[in-house]
Amino acid sequence: MAVGEKCAVFAAYSKNRRTMIAKSIYYGLLSLQHRGQEASGICTYDNEGLRIHRGTGLVREVFNEIELQNLFGPAGIGHNRYSTTGDSSFENSHPFVIKGPRNGIAIAHNGNLVNYSELRTQLSECGHVFTSSTDTELIAHVLAIELIENDFETAIVDTMRQIEGAYSLVILTGRGELAAARDPLGFRPLCLGSSKDAYYVASESVGIEAAGGALERDVEPGEIVLFDSNGMRSRRAFREGRRAHCMFEYVYFARPDSIIDGKYVLHAREEIGRALAREHPVEADVVVPVPDSARTAAAGYSMESGIPSVEGLYKNRYIGRTFIMPQQSKREEAVSLKMSPLRPITGGKRVVLIDDSIVRGTTTRKIVEILKTRGGAEEVHVRIGCPPLKWPCFMGVDMSTRRELIASSNAIESIRKILGADSLGYLSMRGLLDAIGKREGDLCMACLNGDYPIGIQDEEYREILR
Amino acid sequence: MAVGEKCAVFAAYSKNRRTMIAKSIYYGLLSLQHRGQEASGICTYDNEGLRIHRGTGLVREVFNEIELQNLFGPAGIGHNRYSTTGDSSFENSHPFVIKGPRNGIAIAHNGNLVNYSELRTQLSECGHVFTSSTDTELIAHVLAIELIENDFETAIVDTMRQIEGAYSLVILTGRGELAAARDPLGFRPLCLGSSKDAYYVASESVGIEAAGGALERDVEPGEIVLFDSNGMRSRRAFREGRRAHCMFEYVYFARPDSIIDGKYVLHAREEIGRALAREHPVEADVVVPVPDSARTAAAGYSMESGIPSVEGLYKNRYIGRTFIMPQQSKREEAVSLKMSPLRPITGGKRVVLIDDSIVRGTTTRKIVEILKTRGGAEEVHVRIGCPPLKWPCFMGVDMSTRRELIASSNAIESIRKILGADSLGYLSMRGLLDAIGKREGDLCMACLNGDYPIGIQDEEYREILR
Amino acid sequence: MAVGEKCAVFAAYSKNRRTMIAKSIYYGLLSLQHRGQEASGICTYDNEGLRIHRGTGLVREVFNEIELQNLFGPAGIGHNRYSTTGDSSFENSHPFVIKGPRNGIAIAHNGNLVNYSELRTQLSECGHVFTSSTDTELIAHVLAIELIENDFETAIVDTMRQIEGAYSLVILTGRGELAAARDPLGFRPLCLGSSKDAYYVASESVGIEAAGGALERDVEPGEIVLFDSNGMRSRRAFREGRRAHCMFEYVYFARPDSIIDGKYVLHAREEIGRALAREHPVEADVVVPVPDSARTAAAGYSMESGIPSVEGLYKNRYIGRTFIMPQQSKREEAVSLKMSPLRPITGGKRVVLIDDSIVRGTTTRKIVEILKTRGGAEEVHVRIGCPPLKWPCFMGVDMSTRRELIASSNAIESIRKILGADSLGYLSMRGLLDAIGKREGDLCMACLNGDYPIGIQDEEYREILR
Amino acid sequence: MAVGEKCAVFAAYSKNRRTMIAKSIYYGLLSLQHRGQEASGICTYDNEGLRIHRGTGLVREVFNEIELQNLFGPAGIGHNRYSTTGDSSFENSHPFVIKGPRNGIAIAHNGNLVNYSELRTQLSECGHVFTSSTDTELIAHVLAIELIENDFETAIVDTMRQIEGAYSLVILTGRGELAAARDPLGFRPLCLGSSKDAYYVASESVGIEAAGGALERDVEPGEIVLFDSNGMRSRRAFREGRRAHCMFEYVYFARPDSIIDGKYVLHAREEIGRALAREHPVEADVVVPVPDSARTAAAGYSMESGIPSVEGLYKNRYIGRTFIMPQQSKREEAVSLKMSPLRPITGGKRVVLIDDSIVRGTTTRKIVEILKTRGGAEEVHVRIGCPPLKWPCFMGVDMSTRRELIASSNAIESIRKILGADSLGYLSMRGLLDAIGKREGDLCMACLNGDYPIGIQDEEYREILR
Repeated sequence: MAVGEKCAVFAAYSKNRRTMIAKSIYYGLLSLQHRGQEASGICTYDNEGLRIHRGTGLVREVFNEIELQNLFGPAGIGHNRYSTTGDSSFENSHPFVIKGPRNGIAIAHNGNLVNYSELRTQLSECGHVFTSSTDTELIAHVLAIELIENDFETAIVDTMRQIEGAYSLVILTGRGELAAARDPLGFRPLCLGSSKDAYYVASESVGIEAAGGALERDVEPGEIVLFDSNGMRSRRAFREGRRAHCMFEYVYFARPDSIIDGKYVLHAREEIGRALAREHPVEADVVVPVPDSARTAAAGYSMESGIPSVEGLYKNRYIGRTFIMPQQSKREEAVSLKMSPLRPITGGKRVVLIDDSIVRGTTTRKIVEILKTRGGAEEVHVRIGCPPLKWPCFMGVDMSTRRELIASSNAIESIRKILGADSLGYLSMRGLLDAIGKREGDLCMACLNGDYPIGIQDEEYREILR
Repeated sequence: MAVGEKCAVFAAYSKNRRTMIAKSIYYGLLSLQHRGQEASGICTYDNEGLRIHRGTGLVREVFNEIELQNLFGPAGIGHNRYSTTGDSSFENSHPFVIKGPRNGIAIAHNGNLVNYSELRTQLSECGHVFTSSTDTELIAHVLAIELIENDFETAIVDTMRQIEGAYSLVILTGRGELAAARDPLGFRPLCLGSSKDAYYVASESVGIEAAGGALERDVEPGEIVLFDSNGMRSRRAFREGRRAHCMFEYVYFARPDSIIDGKYVLHAREEIGRALAREHPVEADVVVPVPDSARTAAAGYSMESGIPSVEGLYKNRYIGRTFIMPQQSKREEAVSLKMSPLRPITGGKRVVLIDDSIVRGTTTRKIVEILKTRGGAEEVHVRIGCPPLKWPCFMGVDMSTRRELIASSNAIESIRKILGADSLGYLSMRGLLDAIGKREGDLCMACLNGDYPIGIQDEEYREILR
Repeated sequence: MAVGEKCAVFAAYSKNRRTMIAKSIYYGLLSLQHRGQEASGICTYDNEGLRIHRGTGLVREVFNEIELQNLFGPAGIGHNRYSTTGDSSFENSHPFVIKGPRNGIAIAHNGNLVNYSELRTQLSECGHVFTSSTDTELIAHVLAIELIENDFETAIVDTMRQIEGAYSLVILTGRGELAAARDPLGFRPLCLGSSKDAYYVASESVGIEAAGGALERDVEPGEIVLFDSNGMRSRRAFREGRRAHCMFEYVYFARPDSIIDGKYVLHAREEIGRALAREHPVEADVVVPVPDSARTAAAGYSMESGIPSVEGLYKNRYIGRTFIMPQQSKREEAVSLKMSPLRPITGGKRVVLIDDSIVRGTTTRKIVEILKTRGGAEEVHVRIGCPPLKWPCFMGVDMSTRRELIASSNAIESIRKILGADSLGYLSMRGLLDAIGKREGDLCMACLNGDYPIGIQDEEYREILR
Repeated sequence: MAVGEKCAVFAAYSKNRRTMIAKSIYYGLLSLQHRGQEASGICTYDNEGLRIHRGTGLVREVFNEIELQNLFGPAGIGHNRYSTTGDSSFENSHPFVIKGPRNGIAIAHNGNLVNYSELRTQLSECGHVFTSSTDTELIAHVLAIELIENDFETAIVDTMRQIEGAYSLVILTGRGELAAARDPLGFRPLCLGSSKDAYYVASESVGIEAAGGALERDVEPGEIVLFDSNGMRSRRAFREGRRAHCMFEYVYFARPDSIIDGKYVLHAREEIGRALAREHPVEADVVVPVPDSARTAAAGYSMESGIPSVEGLYKNRYIGRTFIMPQQSKREEAVSLKMSPLRPITGGKRVVLIDDSIVRGTTTRKIVEILKTRGGAEEVHVRIGCPPLKWPCFMGVDMSTRRELIASSNAIESIRKILGADSLGYLSMRGLLDAIGKREGDLCMACLNGDYPIGIQDEEYREILR
């Protein structure tokens, strides 16, 4: 099974062939760092072919002034990598570059293919050789085969018709062609913008703004957008059908100032908080968000309920993923070092604790505990900004196997007890749809209801579902 | 002139000589990381003498499991370094260790001496040799001289009577003695705690809690606390007199969940916000804090005014001090990459922007600008949680020379124009005192009123004041 | 054109499946470090599949105790990389590992393919995707195709029949099979050994000894040796024909204590020196070798001529490839920093300077100059342990294009003048053959006489020959 | 007890104040790398004061082009550090720099003080503070005290009269004065040279040549040489008396192309070999040096005896101090990996093995063993280029405590048995004196005869002697 990756892609194509575009891509990637902090890379095109620089770490750590200056050329793509597996090896940093057709091809990808194993087996049986377990390498192989007899555009269309799953792609060739493509269901976001100097493609609209452009529209599900010396043109690889935008982008993943598929993420989050207040009202003294992601929902809850929302947890930002814990294995101890209750806020108070979601439940359980002990809270009422997560995600969000999800095997009341909360309310499915402002047929909610928009044939995946 | 340092000190003394104390110190330093991120170090005592490990970077980067395990022994001190000068060289990392008297002495220090030059000249003229420009090295020299004819306790008293300025010190000897000392005016915080297993000394109470102890009291201005095999004892080096706690600890520097000199930092900040609302009311739609430090004040303003406080600025946490800017020199561009307005919050709105202070004004000016342009704010009313900063600080907070302080040469209205704000309100001196809950004679407010609690004799300092 | 690589390969297969073999491979690679210092890697097999560790630098820098301990399993291969191009990137470190057929395949390779471009074009036209420009990746692709319908052994035979050029290969699969293969002409060395515990394959016999085994025989040109749970077996992919062992292994490249294709390298070198003395006698006072490689030839010259051989040049071993030179570009200045004449040895003397070969002539020219100036030599008679190098090598030894070879465009007398030598003698073709003890039909001497054992079809190569 | 250090010092003073001297120092240090490989540093003077760059590792690793370019100024000193203790910490890298008197003082030092403890105790009792255990820091303190009332020259004289032991010093001030000083007995070498552009001081004459100068003379024992804007001048701190040049510089430590105290090191070594042949003749087939240091002595033995000297041991130069051994602790195994016998040379032969000295005997024992086993030698006759080492050195050469020296507690015949040699011959005291060409009163031979040129008062030293 291929490794799911929750990443950022970015592309820029200058209207002037003398411009160096790398710095725009750099700013775009900086603004999209929240989608992946493990590795970063930029590949540009100039007359001599493709130039690449990549490495592990944050964007600001991977690039320095000199490296950016060496990334000549008026077109390029970039990638921030998020790792679900902790395999942060250099080999897996992107863009993925192959020698050969069209003077070299670079690909950056966000998503996850569900027919990865099947396709790879087919290709392996034809003698294809793989050096990694990434979707991106597989896509490169399919594309390279299609390029034997087809032009660039047709080859991408044919590639899209073979790969199934979630993919938002940017592709650059050593002849200076740039393409962006999005799967027909539109799982992961991808949007298009421009300035007077250049075109931009980004996972989120904030990337376009950071690079100096303005958002124009989303890349449509099933659409290919091509940029070359003739300018920009669009092409559909699939007819319009149902959509399956990931609801989690709105709930948790995207930046609040991004506009995803026409909807301000911030508006969705505020509305989530308001809906929570209507669905699960409670007598309480203070609304406390889990920092940083739940602040907007907490504000919504506060506005709707009239209960003041105040910072009641201090988050120590200097404690990263890796530090020495009392006993290395204890995930809960880590929470206790990262989060401190603000006793003057929570002491003796009835607290509404707002979080965006519950996966395993260990973090929430620990936060409830420290609010009651060190924080002195009288009551803690947990309110969650989406319905219970019951099913694993195969489309690129890391959500483990079914067994690890606390809601897959526990009823609400049972979860409440485990958390040690005085009450527990999850947002309803209806409430979530309304908050996002889309119809059920436009979102992927498989992790909530098990209704996967694509039939899952892969044996490994099926095993997980059992 | 010695380099001012806004740092954290920590010390722990186990009641059981077989305990290894290093891990407690590590947790203490982790929780005090906000006071200094440049370098970190721990020195412990065991029967064979002093053991030290230090390095540049964050606490979690400097130490790994093995290094902590090598820091044997039941007593130790630690330090997080903040650099005002950018001189992040390894040589300047602390604790500072000297060979020789008492089988070695390690010192960690937070503060700034005002008679540094004078003392150093005196010692140099006696043939003393200095390898750095730090206060800590100077203190070590004075202490070593005093130890020739005195016991440890007396030597510290005599040292304190020679050094002038701000200092919160922890000192460890190769014979297992530990001491904590605070200058007679109490500029920088220092507090005392214990658990059933150990005693703790920390710059802020959160450090004691993180190490597993409970806050007992502040180390008093002019007090020395000593720990050795006879337990703990206290001694005063100076009679009680006026105090000069730095008001900036409450306004900006300390963690909100710390208790400094008897006052919850969070309470002070909320009260600052409330007072601002009373002193500078305005008709507006939304209160927006500059993240992260101004959130509590914004909440106070909101409570008092009834105007909702909402997150209106997104802060990109992955952009550190060092990254490549459009033009390296442009400080304002950096602000623009780090802070993004949330247009749905601020668009068409009358915004009250809360910040804790204004130094040069460039950051605030840029935030006002992006709120109005990208954020679409109709009006921006700036409210500042302390009076205008007009005078430089010589006690360890980096606040440049007088000329760089926008309020030293501009009237309020003139500052408002520079900022491009629709109105500007600073908290009054009275309001600040009430919020902190102390009398004027208990705080150092020299940066606000030029009334330095210690006469400034140093020529270099005097030059700055001109 | 593929990058030529003068490398070391090593393999070990334990007779006991519980043994961990990685340390034997480590010792083997340590002893073969002279064949490549740029990068190193080991891949082992255990029941869970292949394990790999590799990196840039010396063997002792790439591996530590923990990394070796993680390389579980009873079989493995290793590689030391030599780079002719200076492209020392991590991506190019070996073994090269592919996922897929036979649970993964790892390949380490020494040599150079002459039909690389042709084969790669063919594969690319079938949609194969390449991420590097190495022969090894190409071999992996051909092997993967052959494995579709064939067993491991047959697939290797068929692969060998498609690739042309110099190759000494070791191949490990994720099912625990190990194979060694050598091209039909036997350009690069490869030998076989064993101990009571394990079988070994190595580029040179010293590797087998270092790992604890004893040399048994060479892997024959065109032979495949396979190791699996049934033990060891041999198979010929080609009938025996002419051979083309690289004469340079004897002259310069191999360790003197290695036995290559049945001949002690040291014996060949001593004989080279003796033959030089017979072919180019001269009245002189002292024989001086260029350290370190020419010492044995100098001893031979001395024994035959009766002129004492003494160290007359001091070599500064601490000056590596990279250091700051007076003017970075001046290769000659580097020589002058690395080599110092020992004036008491050479002052006023007639010196016979022995070196193994002359490529560009710049180094020799500079050594002659410093011997005469700083060394005070009266006369310097240069004697070279092989005939003039006139033709480039396409089989994996870096010898630039024809134009850079001083002997390709200059007669002996003209070279002598350029060198500033008093006389110059190259070993004759006959003398070299006798010294090595092989017939002309057993050696590749293309760099001396342009008689390439394989027809050179590749356009890029042909261009170089023009 | 201070750590003994066998290091290199270098200094250069340009006659033109506009010249940048750093590169000359860099070349000097490169050529003196054999005296210390652990750390390196350069300090230069320009109008703004002292500039320093230093680090751990080889000269070529510590400096790059940019760092050299930042070392402005026409005068400077440099240092290569050798560590006897393995304490390769950055803190101990040199030159040692102090702030304060004369705008800063930098000192580089080779040698060892015997009254270190006494002096340091005195200073500590006056309140002086030490951050390291190096002689250099102590010298800096004494010098700083003397500078209170004296000019630079007098202060150095007075400093020299207080410190006792071996010292070759170079000192640079922030006012651009440079001084070189050598202890009155002249234990460690120090020499003086010049070019038309600059003056040079170096531990060995090869350093002066590498920097572009020519050797003029040795700095005399007890002499101070000063360089400032008035040019160069000399001054004696002590009247001429007996000398105590370390005989080990000739036997082993210095480069063969250096001239030390008027004697070519190479001449001494060749003569040592000749004398060994006369004193300990043996019927044998071949003379084999232990590479690299014993080659010249082997040549001398060969010339005198008529037995040919041939390379019979291959030294693997890529195995450094740190690599993974079969069992980490086994020193002998390391020898076996670094040294391989050349069986064609030694097989069935009677071998004369030449080495410069025997310390513990473990290395020699292992070499004898591998010559007989893997090398097939019939007999191995060990010949050592100096008399038995029986006493520890307190003057800066690492030779452990008495108990570790095999000759301190074993008679020759007993050592021979331990080594497994067929015969063993040490050079006689008389032979060594004649080879070096100095009288007994001119050399320090304390390690051979226990006759220390300076009375050893230090308690720790006396303990070692017991």
